[in-house]
Parts: sequence; C-alpha cells; structure tokens
Amino acid sequence: MEAKKILEKVRNGEISVEAAEKFFRQKPFDDLGFAKLDTHRKIRTGFGEVVFCSGKKDEHLQQIFRKLAEEEGNVLGTRASREQYELIRALCPDAVYDSLSRLVKIIRKPVELRGSVAVCTAGTADIPVAEEAAQTAEFFGSKVNRVYDVGVSGLHRLLASLDPIQEANCVIAVAGMEGALPSVLGGLVSNPVIAVPTSIGYGASLQGISALLTMLNSCANGIAVVNIDNGYGAGYMATQINRLACGKER
Amino acid sequence: MEAKKILEKVRNGEISVEAAEKFFRQKPFDDLGFAKLDTHRKIRTGFGEVVFCSGKKDEHLQQIFRKLAEEEGNVLGTRASREQYELIRALCPDAVYDSLSRLVKIIRKPVELRGSVAVCTAGTADIPVAEEAAQTAEFFGSKVNRVYDVGVSGLHRLLASLDPIQEANCVIAVAGMEGALPSVLGGLVSNPVIAVPTSIGYGASLQGISALLTMLNSCANGIAVVNIDNGYGAGYMATQINRLACGKER
Amino acid sequence: MEAKKILEKVRNGEISVEAAEKFFRQKPFDDLGFAKLDTHRKIRTGFGEVVFCSGKKDEHLQQIFRKLAEEEGNVLGTRASREQYELIRALCPDAVYDSLSRLVKIIRKPVELRGSVAVCTAGTADIPVAEEAAQTAEFFGSKVNRVYDVGVSGLHRLLASLDPIQEANCVIAVAGMEGALPSVLGGLVSNPVIAVPTSIGYGASLQGISALLTMLNSCANGIAVVNIDNGYGAGYMATQINRLACGKER
Amino acid sequence: MEAKKILEKVRNGEISVEAAEKFFRQKPFDDLGFAKLDTHRKIRTGFGEVVFCSGKKDEHLQQIFRKLAEEEGNVLGTRASREQYELIRALCPDAVYDSLSRLVKIIRKPVELRGSVAVCTAGTADIPVAEEAAQTAEFFGSKVNRVYDVGVSGLHRLLASLDPIQEANCVIAVAGMEGALPSVLGGLVSNPVIAVPTSIGYGASLQGISALLTMLNSCANGIAVVNIDNGYGAGYMATQINRLACGKER
Amino acid sequence: MEAKKILEKVRNGEISVEAAEKFFRQKPFDDLGFAKLDTHRKIRTGFGEVVFCSGKKDEHLQQIFRKLAEEEGNVLGTRASREQYELIRALCPDAVYDSLSRLVKIIRKPVELRGSVAVCTAGTADIPVAEEAAQTAEFFGSKVNRVYDVGVSGLHRLLASLDPIQEANCVIAVAGMEGALPSVLGGLVSNPVIAVPTSIGYGASLQGISALLTMLNSCANGIAVVNIDNGYGAGYMATQINRLACGKER
Amino acid sequence: MEAKKILEKVRNGEISVEAAEKFFRQKPFDDLGFAKLDTHRKIRTGFGEVVFCSGKKDEHLQQIFRKLAEEEGNVLGTRASREQYELIRALCPDAVYDSLSRLVKIIRKPVELRGSVAVCTAGTADIPVAEEAAQTAEFFGSKVNRVYDVGVSGLHRLLASLDPIQEANCVIAVAGMEGALPSVLGGLVSNPVIAVPTSIGYGASLQGISALLTMLNSCANGIAVVNIDNGYGAGYMATQINRLACGKER
Amino acid sequence: MEAKKILEKVRNGEISVEAAEKFFRQKPFDDLGFAKLDTHRKIRTGFGEVVFCSGKKDEHLQQIFRKLAEEEGNVLGTRASREQYELIRALCPDAVYDSLSRLVKIIRKPVELRGSVAVCTAGTADIPVAEEAAQTAEFFGSKVNRVYDVGVSGLHRLLASLDPIQEANCVIAVAGMEGALPSVLGGLVSNPVIAVPTSIGYGASLQGISALLTMLNSCANGIAVVNIDNGYGAGYMATQINRLACGKER
Amino acid sequence: MEAKKILEKVRNGEISVEAAEKFFRQKPFDDLGFAKLDTHRKIRTGFGEVVFCSGKKDEHLQQIFRKLAEEEGNVLGTRASREQYELIRALCPDAVYDSLSRLVKIIRKPVELRGSVAVCTAGTADIPVAEEAAQTAEFFGSKVNRVYDVGVSGLHRLLASLDPIQEANCVIAVAGMEGALPSVLGGLVSNPVIAVPTSIGYGASLQGISALLTMLNSCANGIAVVNIDNGYGAGYMATQINRLACGKER
Repeated sequence: MEAKKILEKVRNGEISVEAAEKFFRQKPFDDLGFAKLDTHRKIRTGFGEVVFCSGKKDEHLQQIFRKLAEEEGNVLGTRASREQYELIRALCPDAVYDSLSRLVKIIRKPVELRGSVAVCTAGTADIPVAEEAAQTAEFFGSKVNRVYDVGVSGLHRLLASLDPIQEANCVIAVAGMEGALPSVLGGLVSNPVIAVPTSIGYGASLQGISALLTMLNSCANGIAVVNIDNGYGAGYMATQINRLACGKER
Repeated sequence: MEAKKILEKVRNGEISVEAAEKFFRQKPFDDLGFAKLDTHRKIRTGFGEVVFCSGKKDEHLQQIFRKLAEEEGNVLGTRASREQYELIRALCPDAVYDSLSRLVKIIRKPVELRGSVAVCTAGTADIPVAEEAAQTAEFFGSKVNRVYDVGVSGLHRLLASLDPIQEANCVIAVAGMEGALPSVLGGLVSNPVIAVPTSIGYGASLQGISALLTMLNSCANGIAVVNIDNGYGAGYMATQINRLACGKER
Repeated sequence: MEAKKILEKVRNGEISVEAAEKFFRQKPFDDLGFAKLDTHRKIRTGFGEVVFCSGKKDEHLQQIFRKLAEEEGNVLGTRASREQYELIRALCPDAVYDSLSRLVKIIRKPVELRGSVAVCTAGTADIPVAEEAAQTAEFFGSKVNRVYDVGVSGLHRLLASLDPIQEANCVIAVAGMEGALPSVLGGLVSNPVIAVPTSIGYGASLQGISALLTMLNSCANGIAVVNIDNGYGAGYMATQINRLACGKER
Repeated sequence: MEAKKILEKVRNGEISVEAAEKFFRQKPFDDLGFAKLDTHRKIRTGFGEVVFCSGKKDEHLQQIFRKLAEEEGNVLGTRASREQYELIRALCPDAVYDSLSRLVKIIRKPVELRGSVAVCTAGTADIPVAEEAAQTAEFFGSKVNRVYDVGVSGLHRLLASLDPIQEANCVIAVAGMEGALPSVLGGLVSNPVIAVPTSIGYGASLQGISALLTMLNSCANGIAVVNIDNGYGAGYMATQINRLACGKER
Repeated sequence: MEAKKILEKVRNGEISVEAAEKFFRQKPFDDLGFAKLDTHRKIRTGFGEVVFCSGKKDEHLQQIFRKLAEEEGNVLGTRASREQYELIRALCPDAVYDSLSRLVKIIRKPVELRGSVAVCTAGTADIPVAEEAAQTAEFFGSKVNRVYDVGVSGLHRLLASLDPIQEANCVIAVAGMEGALPSVLGGLVSNPVIAVPTSIGYGASLQGISALLTMLNSCANGIAVVNIDNGYGAGYMATQINRLACGKER
Repeated sequence: MEAKKILEKVRNGEISVEAAEKFFRQKPFDDLGFAKLDTHRKIRTGFGEVVFCSGKKDEHLQQIFRKLAEEEGNVLGTRASREQYELIRALCPDAVYDSLSRLVKIIRKPVELRGSVAVCTAGTADIPVAEEAAQTAEFFGSKVNRVYDVGVSGLHRLLASLDPIQEANCVIAVAGMEGALPSVLGGLVSNPVIAVPTSIGYGASLQGISALLTMLNSCANGIAVVNIDNGYGAGYMATQINRLACGKER
Repeated sequence: MEAKKILEKVRNGEISVEAAEKFFRQKPFDDLGFAKLDTHRKIRTGFGEVVFCSGKKDEHLQQIFRKLAEEEGNVLGTRASREQYELIRALCPDAVYDSLSRLVKIIRKPVELRGSVAVCTAGTADIPVAEEAAQTAEFFGSKVNRVYDVGVSGLHRLLASLDPIQEANCVIAVAGMEGALPSVLGGLVSNPVIAVPTSIGYGASLQGISALLTMLNSCANGIAVVNIDNGYGAGYMATQINRLACGKER
Repeated sequence: MEAKKILEKVRNGEISVEAAEKFFRQKPFDDLGFAKLDTHRKIRTGFGEVVFCSGKKDEHLQQIFRKLAEEEGNVLGTRASREQYELIRALCPDAVYDSLSRLVKIIRKPVELRGSVAVCTAGTADIPVAEEAAQTAEFFGSKVNRVYDVGVSGLHRLLASLDPIQEANCVIAVAGMEGALPSVLGGLVSNPVIAVPTSIGYGASLQGISALLTMLNSCANGIAVVNIDNGYGAGYMATQINRLACGKER
C-alpha cells in the first residue's frame, strides 16, 4: 500500500486532508449505483475484472460491459446466454460469443500466450466446463493444451496422452460422475492439479456433489478443488501459477 | 418349493392335516425365543447361516454358536470382539479368531477352495475390510488372490499387479477416501467388480459416504456396490458368482 | 497383456522400436477429436462400447453411431430422446427405438439368447428402468424373464411368481419408494441379486436416495447395488454373471 | 375446557375474580422451579406424565420421581441409566429397573391389561427398543404380544408368526438397517402399523436415517412413523389406539 | 388365513391338489400383465385398492379404473391430473374430480359416514394436502371436521377452534414450514395425532424436510408421521383408528 | 392480556358470561372460511398482518386484500407475481407493485420514517432480496440506507461505505455464495446485524444452504440469521429493533 | 472512524507520519504472538472481548485472562471446563465458575442491570444453554427474567407465564427437539425473539439441526436464529437490543 | 518416460526381454507385502514419499520409516500420535516430533529454504492445522511466514499484517467456523490462495463442512480448496507453486 506516501504528501502540504481522505475512501472503484466496478483491479492483481453475466439485469449488463471495454480494452464475461450476448453486441460490436463455454469476449489488445496449462476432461459431457477453463486461461495469457475424454475407466486413453499433461506448469482436471480423474493425474505429474467437479451424472451424483467429494478426498498429492462447474475459477488460478512459472513479468 | 409334494401326501393320508400345516408354518427355523435360527438355509441357498456378532448379548451369542456348530459343523461369525471370541471358545474350543478381520471361525468339515476371486485394496488401511471379504469367500469355498495397496494415485503399482485380477471370476475392490479403485479396475477386467467403500479417511470423506458415492457413480461398466465396510457382503456375493462360474456343483 | 510378445518382436527385429512404442501408446481407440472411441473394447471384455446419448451434441452423436455401426455391427445407445433417435436414424436407417426404456438399438448381427436373468419390479412406475435393464441384458445375449409389480406390500403377488426368479442365474430387483424388494428377494434365492433403486416416489424419497439407502443396508445376503435408475448397469453386470454361469464361451 | 363453568361461578359470586384468573393461569401444573410437572395431565388425557430421565440432573430426577409417585402412584421413567435408577430407588424403594429397555417403573396401583398390541422386530438387536415400546404399552394397560426376529430377509419366519399380528388392534414394527418390516406387515394386516426405525446398522444406515426414510416411503397403507429408537412414543400411541378399540372406558 | 380349511378339503377330496396349490399361489389378484390388481384386498383389510395415478401410462390407467369400478363399485384415484381425469371419465362417466386435492372418485355404493376425524392445517397453503386426507377419510366412511389456518404463530385462532379437535377419535395435523402444529395439538388432545408435513415453504424448508424433522422430534405424546404431502396415507390411517373406535363393524 | 378486566366486567354484570366466553374464544380474527385474518394483530404487536401471496388462490388473494385494505388502510403483500398484482389492482386500484422485490403495497395512511436501518448486499444479484427487506422496513416506518455491492472479496468498497452502516440502529446484511459479509460487518459495528442468506450461487452453494451455514457459524458477535431469501423477515425484525431505539412510540 | 482527525494532526505537525501510520496499523490490538487481543473493542462496540475457552492451550488461556483482567477489569470466558477454570483461578483468584453454563467470570467493576430480557426454555434439558445466554446478558448489563420448561406440548404452562415475556425488550427462546417454542412466542410478543436451537434430542433431531431448521422456517414474524447451543451469541445480541431500548447510554 | 530408451536397449541386445518386462512391471516401488513403497517418487515428482501414520499397524510403521530413512535420508510422517513417535524413535533415534502439528521428521540431508509461502489462520484454534501446512512446506524447501489469528471479524488485525501475505508466492488460508478468511484474502493478493477448512466450531459448523462450503463458494478469484484439516495437502501444493515461482531448480 501507498499509505505512507500519501501521508507524507499531506504533511508536506502537497495534497489536502480532504483529498487524502477521499483517496483512502473512494479511489479504487467506479460506482455505477447498482454496482461498484473494480477498475484498479488490474493494477493490483494483474487481472482485469471479469463479469459474471448470469442473473444480471439487461441494462446493468450493458453499462458494465461498455464501461469496462472503455477502461480496460479487453473484457471477459462468463455464463452469458445468447440473449445477453446480443445485448452486449448492440453496444460493443466487436464482442464475440462461444456457445459451448458461454463466454463473451472483447479483445482490443492482443494477448501473448505463454507457458503451458493442460486442460483434461474425463468425458465428452465435461467439455463445456473445460472450455470455460481453457478460454479463461487463454484470455489471461496462458498457452493451453486440451486433452479430452480420458476418463479413468479407459486408462489406455489417458496413458497415451500423457506428454502434454506432464509438461504443463499446471493441470486442470475436469470430471463429473465419480470424479476420479484428478486422483490418477495427481500420481502422474509433478506440478499442481486443479480439480473441477462437474454436475454431469444422474442419481447419486447429486448434481456434482459426488465428484466434488471424490476430489476433496483424493489421496494423491498436489490437488486442490474449485466449485462444481467452476471452469472460470480453475482457469484463473492456473494462470496465476503459470505466470509464476514463467517469471511473472506480464 | 415342495408344497405340491406335501399336499399330495395329505391327500393320500400319508401325513395329517395338522402335520402339513405345521410344515408350512414352523419348519424352516429353530426358535431360540430371542432368535429364530435359519438352519435350513444351507439347503435352500448353499450357504449356512452366518452370525453378526456385534451387539449380541453374551448368552445369546454362546447359544447361537453352539447350536449352529452342532447342526452345521462349520460356523462363521463376523464383527466379533476378542471378548466375544473368548466367550465362544469357552463352549467351542476349536473356534479360531482373526483380529484383523474380526472373524470367528469353526471349521469341522474341511472346505475345498475352487475358482478364483481377487481382493484388491487401494491402501493399507483398507486391509481389515478386505480380509473380511477374502476370508468370507474362503470360508464358502472360493480360492482368493490378495492384491493390496494398489490405489489409483500410484498407477504403476496397480498395472504391475494386473494378472491375478484379470484372471479372476470376480474382483472385490476395497477403497476408502476418494474410492476410485473400482472405476479403474472396471475398465481393465471383463468379469464383475464388487466395490466396497470403507470408512477410511477424514473430513469430507464423511465416514465412507464419499467413497460410496464415487463407486455408485462410476462410469465403468460391471460394478455394483455394497454397504460401507461390508467386506462380508462382498465376499458372499463374490462366492455366488465364483460358484456359478465353476459350475455350481458344490 | 501382450507386452511380452511385442518386446520379443522388437528384439527379433520383426517390428521397429517406433512401431512398438506406437503400439503401446495409440492402439486401443479411435480418436474423433472430441471423443476417443474404444473400438478394441469388445476384444478385451466381450462387450462392445455403448453410447450414453443424453447430453451429447447432435453431430457428435451421429458420428459416434456411424463409426460404431461400421466397426461393430451392433450398437446400443442409452438415455436417448426421440429427437436423438431421429438424428441417428437419418444416418443408420436400421436403428430402432424403444420409448419406454429410451434405448436405441442397431442389430446387424443376430444375438443368441442364453442362460437366464430375472428382472423384477416393485411397482408399475419402475418398469422403464426395468426395461432398460432387461433389454440391455438381451442386447448382450442373456435370456430374460420379466416379473413386474410384485412389491413387498402385497406379498402374495411376489410369492405367486417365485419360480422364474428362483431359477435365474442372476436377479435384477428394481424398486423406488421404500426399495424393500431386494431384501425380500435376497432371502428367497440362492444366486446374486443386483438392486436398482429408482427415483420413483415423492417427499422423503429424495429422488431415489431413500431406496438406495434401503438397498445398501439390506440384511439379506447376496445383494449389491447400482446407481439410481441405472438399469443399464444392472443389465450389464447381470450378463457378466449369466455368461460365467453359462460357461462364458460367447 | 371448563371455562364456562368458572365464568358462571364468577358471575354468581361463588369465586372471586382473582381466584378465577389464578385458575386460568396457574392450575394445571406443579412448579418445581426448574420444571413444571403436569399433574393434571392424567385427567386431561388419561395418561400420567412420564419422565425422560436422560440428561436430567440427579437432584431434579429424585424430586420429580418422589413428587409424581406421591401424586400419581404409578410412575414411568424412560432412558434411565442404572446409576439414575439407584438414585431413584434411594427415595422410592419400590422402583424397579429393566436394563434392556432402560425403563424405571413404580407400580402402586395394579394395571389391568386389555385389548391387544403386537410388537414385532426385524432382528435381535432391535429388541431393546421393542421392549421400551412393549413395556410402555403394558404400563398404560395394553395387553402385548411380542414377535421378535422376523425380518424380511427370512420371510418364512414372519409368515409362520402371523396370527398374533393379524389379530392385534395395533402393530408396532421395530426395525433398523433397511427397515423394510413395516412395509411387509402393512400389506398383511388391517389395523394400523406404527413403524419404529432403530439406529441399528453401520455405514450407510446413517444411525437409523436409512430405516426412517424407508418407513416414511412405504407404499403399504396404514403406516405412520415415530422418531428413531422412540419405542416409548410407539407404545404410547399404540395404547391410544388400543383403548379406542376397547371402548375407551379406562 | 384359511390354510387349514383348504387343507381339510384336500384331505376330504373336496378339492384337488392342483386347485389347492392354485389357491395358494394365484388367488388374490388380477394380473393385467403390466399390473397385478389386488381385488381381494377389501376382503382382507376392509379397504379397497386405491390407484396412485401420477406417472401411470394412459391406457394402463383406463384399464385399471374400468376393472376396479366393475369389481368394487367405488374407486378412489390419487394425484390425478385433469388430463388423466378426462381419460378416466371417457370410460367411467360417473367419475368426479376435485382439482384441489387432485382426487378422482367413482361412488356407486353410497358410503355411510361414522365416528369423527379432525383435519387441521397450519396455513391456507396446506389445504390441498388436507383435502386429500379429508376426502380419503370420507371415501372410506369417516365423518370429518375441517379446521383450517390455525398455525401456532397465531395461537388464539387455534384455541378458539378446539372443540371439534378434542372430540375427534383421531386428529390429522397438516403443516409445512416449521411444522409445529402437531406438537401443540399433541398436548391438547387425548387421541392419536397423525402429522403430515407439507412441502410448503422456501429456503431452509428443504421441500418439507424441515417440517418432517420437526414432527418426528415432537416432544408431545401420541404423534406419528407420514411422508411429506401424503394426505392419502393420513386419511387412510385415521380411518383405521376411527373404525376401531366405532366398533369396527363396517 | 386484558383477561382480568373482562372477568371484572362479568362479575359486575357489565357483560354476560356468553359474551365473555365469546371474547376469549372468537375475538381476534375474521374468519373467511378458508383463512382467519388477524385483524387485531396491529393492536397487539404494532404491525398489521402481511400477506404472503405466493401459492394463494386467486379469489382468496382478492378477498384478503380487500378485507385488509378496508380494515387497516395500509396493506403489504410479499412474493407476488405480476399476475397476482393485476388481480389485486382490479379490486384495489391504488395498489402499487415493485417487480424487483415482488412486493404489492397499498398505502392509504402516510407513514413517517424514523430512526435508521442499513441494508447491505454482497453483490448485485442479492439486490431483490435486499429490496424486499428495505421496503418492508420502510412500510413499517423505518428510515433505510442502502449500501449495495460491498462483498468481502473487494474490501475497499466496503470500507469506503462504512458511515451509514456504523450509524444504523440495525444492519441487514444480504449475501449469497460464501455469505461472508455479515461476519465482516459484525466486527465493524456495535448494533445488531441481521444476516439474510440468498439462494444466489451455483454448485456447492446448495441454493443458499452454504451462505446460511456461514452466517450461523460466524465468529463475529451480534449476528442472527433468518431463512434463505427472507428479506421480509429481516425488514420486520430490523423495524422492531429500530422502534425500540427510537423510543417505541409509534 | 477517526481517520480524519489523525490526518489533520499530521498536517498540523502534531503527530509524525510514522506515528500516524503506526496508528493506522498497530493500534487496536495486543499481539501475544499466538493471539491478537482486541483491547480497543470495548471503545468501538461497548462490549469487551470475550474468551472462547474450549480448545485453547493452557498457557495461552492463562495469559489471555490475566491480560484482559488487567486491562478491562471484567472478563467473561465461555465453554470453560472445570480444569480450565482452576488454571485461570491460579492467576486470577477472584474468578468464579458456573458449572451449568460453563462460564468463567471476573467482575472487578460492578455492572448495573437495566431494561429487560426474557430467557425461555422449552424443557429442563435446555437450561444450560439458557443460562449461558442469561448470564452473558447480565454480564453486559441486562436485567434478565428466566421462564423455563414452557415447551409447546404443554401450552398452559407457557400461557401462565406470559407477563415477563411480553414485557421484555427482547426474548431469547431456547429449544431442542422440535424447536417450536420461538414460533409460538413470536405470535405472542411485539419485540424481537432470538431463537437458540439446542442439541438436545435423539435420532432425527440430528444434534440440533432439526430444531435449527424449525426456527429458520418459522412463519411467525420477528424471529432470528443463532447457531446450535450458542447461548452466548443470543445473550450478546439481546443486550444490544436491550441497550437500544434503554437509550444506549452505557 | 524412458520407455523408448529401454526398448532401444532391447533391440540392441543390451538388456534381455525378461529384464525389460521386469523393468516395466516392478521397478518403481518396494513391495513390503503389506505395502508398496514408492521409492522412485522423488525422481518422478521432486517430492519423496510421505507417511500417513494414523491407523498404521505398529510394526508396519516401523518398517516403513526404517526403509524410507535408509533410502531417502529425509522422512516426513503426518498425523502421528506420540506413541507412534516413540516406536519410530526406537529404530530411528534422530526422529523428532512436533505435538502441535503431529508431524514426525527425520532430517539427514539439510534442506535449503527458498521463495515465500504465507500461512494465515482465522483463529488460534486453527493453528495445529496451519503448523502441519507450514512445516510440510518447510520440509520440502519453502520459506514460510506465519500470520495467525487474523479472522475477518476483526478486520484491523488482518489489515495490519498484509505485507508478508501480499509478497508470498502462495498463500495458505486456514479457517474453521464460517471460513471467510480465504475470500477476504483472495481480494487482497495477486498470487494463488489455497484454502484449508478446519473442523473447528460447533453446531451448524458440521465438523468443518460449513467452512468447506464457504471456501468452495468464494466469489473471490484465485482460490482452491483442500479437504477439511488437510494442512499437509496445502503445504505440498504451496511448495509446488513456490518452486515454479523460484525457477524449479531444486
């Protein structure tokens, strides 16, 4: 924090008490009334603010995207419906939509892809969540390798695809139903595995709770878990790790 | 059922109405007052009655073992404490106890071991449940191969031990924590896999519920599940399958 | 595994190192990009790959069916909607659909039915799941007897239908609500019972969790449980057992 | 309520306003400070107050028993430890204890047993709860028939014992593990069945939750359920029903 | 059972062995193929079979109603949609429908109402379940008093309506949300209370699980519980109790 | 209670016994048959009766609103759909509707706003529940400050908005997902915090159960919790507290 | 916050930049290494810091009590065992212990009791939690009325004790098992009710979860809930409310 | 993998087919009979095998420690009781024990500490789990900063300790009860946060499930979660991340 610098300026009369207090209080966000946009977030964390679209009111969504596009250039929206995308595109014609991952993207400053993140799925039904993870990681500058449909009940498929997984700085393992993929991967790689349970399954899968519990109880080392279907969260954290491995200069 | 034969004897006057009714009503068990021993069970199913010792009153336990030993020769007791074993041994000096599986056995008629059942565990802590399964299967005449500590987070250990597993008529897969072993085995063998979740683990393992859910949600084929820590149930069903494979003549 | 044979051929110069490595790595599946079809599965396990249709993308579903029909002749699809069936039929005109069980079948090589599997239900609402089980078993070559609406609250109906149940190599017991049927059957038969909880019921049935717990806690012997509504899994395992009983030559 | 009579007496000057208000407010219990004994309960409901001993402080327990024994003659205490019984006996030497059901009883006025209640258990481990039910019913004047160890996995034992069950005004069905006994009984009798789940079992029995769910979901008619291990509640309600059937003159 | 009489007839040659065996086996139901109608149920229990309509196939529903109407005269169907009612009315024009309780009734033999059952609700949203209970009890011959909207958060409403409740042979207490009504009623009446949790509520009401737990844990005496929203089951059991109180001659 | 006064009037002959009894029994509500309106509630508690609209039958809803509007002047309806509002407006043209909070209001007597309640949300998706709370508090006479989108993952936004929160007599903290806002607020204010979990979130948020548990387990002091999405309940209790702080003269 | 004042002093040279920064950073707690005592808490909130004793290491507990007693005079410790009390008394001989509530108190500055809080329990087993609440409220200066053993299954006991409850500024309602007391109280009083579920009960009470759900789902107004057995939290919040009602000058 | 190299040696006759097959099969572990020690683990992953002591048999534990100490030099054991430590020390006199974290360590090769990991706790009761994390990270070569007792209900304590947290390559956030610490930290740092729920709490904390859910639902970015009380897992993964940040040369 720069508290000390501000205080020194107050003492030196460079800025007024009121300005200093305002600095402490109001600086780091834009207040739209209904929302408080964290426009200094990128400076603090190296990641711009991302919009969780689901459930947002139409006019709010539009204002948020326009504001962020103006201030940040690149904007990422998650869990967007096609209807929401059309609303956004009306204001930001360069917005693009991926119906599989339900991501909306505005890319005005090209992003260089670095390092290596592997995104794996157990089955084909896990691919939408995996794509949310993969494209989030790419949005933030990670190079991504996709290895899909390598669930543990057909082990030969996984063993035949190990190279990109073992070479990644971070592995994202996406699985529903019994959710065993991260445990097997955890024993085969030396870098961290981020496990993403999906709500794929039926009956006792309990909408992903079963896979979530499996992953939390893994006896393999180097595994941590995010919320059910939270591909975005996995892609974000994988990028944090990938950046650390690449030397962080972003 | 032999209902028809009895009815013909009634018509022919070979047995009285009262005897027939008694036959229909009272035959197939010994009523000890507090319990009704199913001494005709072996004839009906090929398996003698087994005693679940835990929670039985001392004198009841003793009477049940003595009665069954007299009538059946071989007796199996599950979930027995050492104290209970001492009580049983006081009346049946040839009873033996295995403290790992907590089984009490009386073997007065030797049992020939046939066919092949594989019993696998994910970790070393699962061995007590696995031994309950293995020794139950042996008590009922199955030849058993033990393959222990082959959990999925160290896949090379499992792959190095596949032969006895792939050759078995039935595989018992015992695992706690994330419980992923049956899913991996299900993809590697062609015969049925009986999955036994164990209460091994901590935190979100929920005393075995996590492993149970994993196994129920397995996307591998040919897997069915028994109750948490129910090694006995797995050993029993594996024997049923093994006998069918051996031609059932027992 | 045939690892040894390959290695001997390498030593003898019959195949190159590169070919051998490729064999170890890439052989046992067809990679469609989005999915990895296990076309060697039938050789390994005696069962061809089955398609879980629910949630598959339209074009993926079509490609998978066409590929499997070409390579295997007979194809089974589970949990298919009528819309999905129409898509499949557009490419494979000999596909047939059963709206009760939601199975799609292509049968180009006739299947001989052998042995005996009994499929029982507690109520009439359990029949769709039972049909998934029964037709799966028939697809893989098991002769099936159906005994429906014999729930335990009307015991005389069950007792009047015991013969085909007691004679089966394996019994599938399908029940929702309180799920007590497998426990009663387990006491009446000598061969294995596969219990299938269904999501039939309301209130405290918790979408099948109640029936599932009942079945896991059964004090009858010889019962194992599959996931809620998983008729397919039960039919598959029943066939494994039935084949073992028939002598396995398939 | 006798509100009207009191009000008439107020108008007639037979009792004062203060007395009437006191009547409305303070009559129907003895306030011991820490507890409010409902000594008018027997007049209102035909059942005296019963003491739930577990967790009561020693001196409180003693005072409550002495007070009730003085005022009511007969006293019933449930869930009493032997230590608690010794404390009670120090003040009430005619108190008796049943270690199986954990009931303490003082009987100073003999109770005539009438009508018929059947108490059934699935296994021998359910007997303690069944005895709590049976002896509670007897304490309140019901004639009881005990039918123990007739669980549904050995149906012939149940069918051989039907007479006393079918003749009872009310059946209490006590079962742990899968808890299927009430469903089967519900289909065989015409009078009400009170189902008592017990905490007997392990693993997925969840301390009786599994049996409780089974019973709530029973598709048999005429079944209602009390709390896990609540033999007392079942015995109480069975007596209410039995009294109605006997003509209620008690 | 009349087993003995049949056996005597066999001995006397009055009926053949085959007829006797058939009697034991096939008598008590009509097998429609997809369902086994229990047409002897009324003789055994005094209650005809009732049809749970929800989920039945259209043609099955029609056949079942026609068959039961022919054989029994009066028929009750529960959980029927208006569409199902129209199907039934096409075959049985005298069928009537109550959209609140979702019951379909055919009454060809008038029913005399006897005794007294009180049906209470906590709120107005619980009325549909209460009507299912009340009309079921009336269908089976019980006189019913309805006391609605007397939840415990407005105690004066309940206290002002006590007379019909305290005079009933059996009280049905229907409540969602916190489900406290049965506890309060249990302390105010001397006859049994059947508690019916409803799925009314939101958030932590968990679709009725909260009310169900409340009722199971009631510290009032004389309360037993049926499944969530199971008005039918409560009306059935209340009738059993009411009949016992009326002297059972029906 | 005024019991004493009534009784004195009875003694003095000022009112008859019948009138007194009627007073005790029937006074405090209007019985519409299907519902019992608590029209004396405002006298007893200072708050008029509020209508929970969801699930009410159309004609019932109309009658209730008309009756309450006539007797109380101001009426509040919660969880109303727009369709329900149109029905109400047909009879009460001065009814107004807020689609965000789903409240219907009739205000015929102006309400003076006093004291201070702060309503905070963690995110923008929590605003509908917050508005239900805020407008309920306003309906009952509390002055409200709204502080929205100050979730704990962007702490600077919360710290910049502390003044109205710290000055309030009561704080309502509305949050879904992890529900951490009340804990942080609890450490920053000296007056009570009412925590409202919302059903906002996905996966392991379990429709608000996760946020509910978080709030119940808060280690901050001065926090109590209402049901998931229960903005109304929070606004009601905040007003109770605010009135106490203002001196209660309302 | 006094941020502005500090900043003005910095500008005026009254304090140095370093001092100001230190003020912002280190002022409000004493860092003992293993714990950070919030010794300015009383100034901020009017309540001193309270020690949750359970699980604290012996030497830590002693240091914390000594430090707080020196700085604050009065100290309250919750969930203390007798052993922990002995340790504390060794350093602070004026500490007193209440074994029922498990509170340790040091009172060096007398506390004046003001206002009115009512603490009610459903049963006698709830008294320990109620005493934790009552004595906490007294420690912080609230006058408390105790009304114990007034559960809803014996309504006359509650109605006879209404006066102190209806006059209180805040009511604490403590109940286990079905937890219905707060709902009934909520309908009888005009001030807030803080509901405290207790872990009293068995079986489906689920260690207090059942009572907790009941309270959260209460349809009475003016009820909020704290964690299971959290008497301390209820006493704290009741005092906040009571102080607001008394005019807050403390 | 070095598969290719081995295959080339086979072709060149440098090693025999049998040796190659043995290499593929048996190399990477030491089979002790009851356990299969993964002694090549360090080569594959950079982390030696760690012993989960809890539940291990005494003689097994001793053998495993002796073997690993001989082969690896440094050994870490988790969840060890003091009794187990004494057994280990009997064979390995240089073993040391930390009773807070329950870790046993043998350090024969000094470890250089690099990079930076911050370990934070919400309360003092979370310290044992935090120490397991911190000492695990140190065992594997990470430099650790401990920041304890900075829970969110006293935000000033956290804000005063931000520097070491914001500078770490990875933050471990350990919290029980409401588990809100990771959410607040996630908004304040730019590197990954590993959240560790602890079983600290009571009532609705559900032995850590509440904290676990909070952390999974965090709306802050860059958070992933491990199992309840799994300090070891967090320390392991933090080291993986820290090594990547340091350039991985270990």
